[in-house]
Amino acid sequence: MQEFDDCATLLIHCRDSKGLVATVSSFIQSHRGNITDFDQHVDAQSGVFFMRARWSLKGFALEKSQIRGVFERAVAQPCGMTFDLHFSGDRTRMAIFVSKMSHCLYDLLASCEGGKWPVDVPLVISNHEDMRAVVESFGVEYHCFKITKENKAEQEAKQMAMLESHNIDLVVLARYMQIVSDKFATAYNNRMINIHHSFLPAFPGARPYHQAYERGVKVIGATSHYVTAELDAGPIIVQEVTHVSHRDDVSDLLRKGRDLEKLVLSRAVWHHVNHDVLSLDNKTVVFE
Amino acid sequence: MQEFDDCATLLIHCRDSKGLVATVSSFIQSHRGNITDFDQHVDAQSGVFFMRARWSLKGFALEKSQIRGVFERAVAQPCGMTFDLHFSGDRTRMAIFVSKMSHCLYDLLASCEGGKWPVDVPLVISNHEDMRAVVESFGVEYHCFKITKENKAEQEAKQMAMLESHNIDLVVLARYMQIVSDKFATAYNNRMINIHHSFLPAFPGARPYHQAYERGVKVIGATSHYVTAELDAGPIIVQEVTHVSHRDDVSDLLRKGRDLEKLVLSRAVWHHVNHDVLSLDNKTVVFE
Amino acid sequence: MQEFDDCATLLIHCRDSKGLVATVSSFIQSHRGNITDFDQHVDAQSGVFFMRARWSLKGFALEKSQIRGVFERAVAQPCGMTFDLHFSGDRTRMAIFVSKMSHCLYDLLASCEGGKWPVDVPLVISNHEDMRAVVESFGVEYHCFKITKENKAEQEAKQMAMLESHNIDLVVLARYMQIVSDKFATAYNNRMINIHHSFLPAFPGARPYHQAYERGVKVIGATSHYVTAELDAGPIIVQEVTHVSHRDDVSDLLRKGRDLEKLVLSRAVWHHVNHDVLSLDNKTVVFE
Amino acid sequence: MQEFDDCATLLIHCRDSKGLVATVSSFIQSHRGNITDFDQHVDAQSGVFFMRARWSLKGFALEKSQIRGVFERAVAQPCGMTFDLHFSGDRTRMAIFVSKMSHCLYDLLASCEGGKWPVDVPLVISNHEDMRAVVESFGVEYHCFKITKENKAEQEAKQMAMLESHNIDLVVLARYMQIVSDKFATAYNNRMINIHHSFLPAFPGARPYHQAYERGVKVIGATSHYVTAELDAGPIIVQEVTHVSHRDDVSDLLRKGRDLEKLVLSRAVWHHVNHDVLSLDNKTVVFE
Repeated sequence: MQEFDDCATLLIHCRDSKGLVATVSSFIQSHRGNITDFDQHVDAQSGVFFMRARWSLKGFALEKSQIRGVFERAVAQPCGMTFDLHFSGDRTRMAIFVSKMSHCLYDLLASCEGGKWPVDVPLVISNHEDMRAVVESFGVEYHCFKITKENKAEQEAKQMAMLESHNIDLVVLARYMQIVSDKFATAYNNRMINIHHSFLPAFPGARPYHQAYERGVKVIGATSHYVTAELDAGPIIVQEVTHVSHRDDVSDLLRKGRDLEKLVLSRAVWHHVNHDVLSLDNKTVVFE
Repeated sequence: MQEFDDCATLLIHCRDSKGLVATVSSFIQSHRGNITDFDQHVDAQSGVFFMRARWSLKGFALEKSQIRGVFERAVAQPCGMTFDLHFSGDRTRMAIFVSKMSHCLYDLLASCEGGKWPVDVPLVISNHEDMRAVVESFGVEYHCFKITKENKAEQEAKQMAMLESHNIDLVVLARYMQIVSDKFATAYNNRMINIHHSFLPAFPGARPYHQAYERGVKVIGATSHYVTAELDAGPIIVQEVTHVSHRDDVSDLLRKGRDLEKLVLSRAVWHHVNHDVLSLDNKTVVFE
Repeated sequence: MQEFDDCATLLIHCRDSKGLVATVSSFIQSHRGNITDFDQHVDAQSGVFFMRARWSLKGFALEKSQIRGVFERAVAQPCGMTFDLHFSGDRTRMAIFVSKMSHCLYDLLASCEGGKWPVDVPLVISNHEDMRAVVESFGVEYHCFKITKENKAEQEAKQMAMLESHNIDLVVLARYMQIVSDKFATAYNNRMINIHHSFLPAFPGARPYHQAYERGVKVIGATSHYVTAELDAGPIIVQEVTHVSHRDDVSDLLRKGRDLEKLVLSRAVWHHVNHDVLSLDNKTVVFE
Repeated sequence: MQEFDDCATLLIHCRDSKGLVATVSSFIQSHRGNITDFDQHVDAQSGVFFMRARWSLKGFALEKSQIRGVFERAVAQPCGMTFDLHFSGDRTRMAIFVSKMSHCLYDLLASCEGGKWPVDVPLVISNHEDMRAVVESFGVEYHCFKITKENKAEQEAKQMAMLESHNIDLVVLARYMQIVSDKFATAYNNRMINIHHSFLPAFPGARPYHQAYERGVKVIGATSHYVTAELDAGPIIVQEVTHVSHRDDVSDLLRKGRDLEKLVLSRAVWHHVNHDVLSLDNKTVVFE
C-alpha cells in the first residue's frame, strides 16, 4: 500500500459486464483524481465483478461530501453497483469481545495503541472481569456481561445496545467463548470477525487442538472469518499454519496456536480496516 | 543428520518403562559403539516408547551379521521391544505407482538418480503407457497394467507378484488414481506411502482442489501418509501448505498443488528411507 | 488468474501521471473488449507507473494484427509508455542452461511437458554430457559446449548464435555453473533468469550453503532473479526459504536446498511466461 | 514436550567420546529416574557433544539438593562435562529492556501473564517513560534510565546493579535501541537475547527494512540471537520470514515486521526458559 495524504477508497461489487473498469476510472479521471491503487477481480463461477479504487483527493473536483451522491447517480445506479466509500482520515470504531484468554485482545490493543492503525477501540466487552486492569491501562472502557443460559438473550440485547450507542463499525470476537445469536450475526453482517483455532474446514467446533492431536497432523492452523449464522462456516479472510511434530502434546499445540491466532486475527482486522476485503456468499476477495 | 562412513541404525518401540534409554545405550557402549544420533519419544496417551539410535561400527565388537541376534536376546526380548536394524550401506528398493500425472514420479526419479539417495528404483508400475520413454531413459523398468472393474483384482495380484519378485521394500503411490485393496495395503503396512492433495483431514476423497475452491480457503495443502485400509486416514508423515487467494481459480490450485505434492511426497520418502519414521495406530513419530 | 479462451495482455510502464488507468481502460472498452484482469502499481520512490491489463478478444473491434499499431499511436506514444503485447495462444520459447546438477532442469522439463505450461523448450545447453538421455527422452535437443578458460568467449558466441537461430525468448540458467558475459546478459536483459541458492543479499557468490552452515542460520533460502552484469544483484522475482536446525549438516542443506531451488526457479519462470513480471532497475513488480 | 509433574533437566556439553549417552542415562537409571526426554547432538565440525536429558523425580533416589553434587563427582568431572541442572518448579527471572516500540514488550508480558510460562518478570527497564502505565497494570516494576552520550556508562552500571539486586537470570532486549557495552554482554553471556529485524546475516545494523525495500527482496525476516560483543553476530536462536511484494512500501514492511519480531523473540525466549538451547561459539543447538 502506498501512503498518500488525503485519498478516497471505493469498494464496489456488481454483476460483471463490459466497460466497468473504464467507467469507474473515467469517473475519477474526469474529476481530476489521480488513481494510486486499482484492483479488480471477476469471480468466474458467480460472474460477480469486484473492484477497489483509491485516488488522491488533491485537486479533486468534488468535495468529499458530494462524492457519494454524484457517484451514486452517475455510475452506481446505472451499472447496478453496490459500493462503499471511505476517506483516508476515517477511523474504524472497533469493539473487542473476549472471555478468559487474553492473547488476541492484548495483541489488538497493542497494535491499535498510539494511532498506529486507523482504528479506535472505545470498548472491550467480556463475560469475565479478569482483564479489566490491563484494558483500562490502555485507556479503553471495559464492560463485563456475565452470561448464563437464562440471561443470554437479555445480555446480548444490552451488548448490542451498547455497541449501537458507541457507534461501533466492527465487532471482533477475540476468542470469545460464546456463540452469538443469528440476530446479532445478521446485524453485523461482514462487520463481525471471529478467530477459529484450526485451518477450517478441518476441526470445526470445540477443542480443535485436541482433535488435531488425536489425528496426528503435522500442521496446525488458525482461521479468521466473518461470522454468519452457520458456525465456523463464514467467509474466510486469513488462514495461516505452523508445523508441529510428535514432540508437541496438546499443551504445545495450545501454545503454538496462541501465536497463530494472534497473527491471523491481527491480519484479518488489518485487511478489514484498510478496506481490502469484499465478501460474497461464503468467500472473500482480499485486495492486498 | 551427521554423515558417518559405516553405521547402524536401530528403530525401536515398546511399552514405556524405566531404564530403556540406559539399557539400549549401554548395550551399544559395552560393545564399543560410538553413538552419533540418539532420539527417543514417549507418547503420553498410549504410553508407548519410541527410539532411534545410530552408532559408528568402527571398532564395534560385533560383526554386522551378529548384531540382530545378540540384541534380540540381550535386550529386545527381555524388554518386549519390536525393532528394526539397518546399516548405512543398505539401499531401499522402491517401486513407484503412477497414473497419468507425471510430476511426482519424475521428481522422485530425479532425486534418486545417480545414487544421491540411498534408494534403488527397479520398476515403475502404471495403468497407462504415457511415461514409458522418460522412465526408461532413467534406466528404470516400466510396466503397464491396464485396470478395468473386471480385471482389477487379477491385475493387482500380478502387481504384487512383480513387487515380490523384485524384492521391493517400499511402494510409493505417486498420484496413482486407483484405490488399492485392503490385502495389498496390509501386505505393505507402513511400507506403502501415498500423497493426498489436501491438508487432511480437510477435503478427503475426490477432487480436493475443487472442494477447496468452493470453500474459499486461503491455504491449500498436501499430505503424505502410510496407506491403511481406511481411505486417506493412515498415519501422516509430512504435511505442507501454500497460500492461495481469490485470484487463484481451480487451474491455479492444481498448478500450485503440483509443486506441493512433489515436495511433500519427496520429504516423506526421504524420511522413510532415512529410517526416521516410526508409526503406531494412526500417528507417526518422525525423528529429524 | 481466470482462464478465458482468447485474450490479450498488455504490460506497460511509464512515468506516472493522472488518467493512465482511465486512458488504457477506455481504449479497451471503446473497442468493445471485456477486461478480465487489471493490475497497476505506482512505485512511490521512482514515480514509475506499472500496469497489466487482460481482456477477452471475443467481439473485440480490432484484429490481433492491428492492436499493437493502433495502441501505439492512440495511447502509448502520447503517454510516453513502454509496452508489451501478448496473446493467449502465444508460447514462450525457452532454452535451459545446465551443468551437472539435474534437479532444476528435470523439474522444468516435467512442468512444461505435454503443454501444461505455455512454453516450448526447443533446446537444452550444457557444458557436460550427463543429462543427454533424459533430456532427449522429453523430445528436446541437447547441445553440449565444453568450456575452458581459453574457449569460453568463443563457445558463448556459438551458444548465442544457436539461441538466435532457435528464436529463443527466454534463457533459464538452471544451476549453470558458468558466469555469463556482460554482452550475453545485456542481450537477454529481463529475459534471462538465474537461480541462486541463498536468500539474497545474504550469501552471494560461491558455496552459499557452506556459508550458511558456518553462520549457524535457522533458515536457508533460494532466489530467482533476472541476470544483470553485476553477479547475484539483478532484480529479484521470487524468494523462498525453509527451516533448518543444528541437526542439518552441509549435505542436508544441499538436499533441502535442491527442493527450494526447484520451487523458486519454477515459480519465477511461471510468472515470466504468464506475463506477470515487470522490472525496473534492480526491482520487479510481480502481478499475481 | 511432555508435561510431567516434577522433573529434572540436565543440559550438558563436552568433547565427544564413546559412551557419553550410556554414562548419563545409566546414572539416571541407577538412581531410579524415568527418562522422559533425551536429546543429543554431536557437532561434526568442532567435535563437541551436546545433550539434554529430562527425567521424572518421582521415586528418584537422590534429593533435589544432592543431585548436582553427586552428578558432578560421578559423571561430569570424569567426563570433562560442563552442565546445567534445572527443576520443573524453577522459574526464570526475566528483565525486559525496551525503548519506544511496545509490540515485543507487550507480547512478552501477555505471554508470561498468569503463570502461563515458567517466567517471572520483576522489572522492565526503558530509556523512555511511554509504557509505564501498561507495564504497571501487569503488576511489573517500570524503571526509566534516560541515556545520553555522557551518562551512558554510568546508567548502564546502575542498570546492571538493579538486575543484580533483582536476581535476574535472563535479559531480553525487546527492540531496545541502545547498544550494550561488551562488559554488559559478557556478564550476561548466553543469558541476553536480542531481536534483530532482518534475516541475518542480511541487513545487519540500522534500518534493515529500509535496506530490504531498497534491494527489492521478496521476503523479510527477523532474527533472535544471544548478544555478543560483535553487533548482530551472536548465536542465532530463531529466525522466521514473511513474504512481501512490490505493493509493500517501507511502512508495510515495518508493520509486517512487527508481527515477525514478536513471533521470533517470543519463540526464542520460550526455548531459552524451557532449557532447549545450548550455545557454542556463534551457533546454537535448539532441542525442540
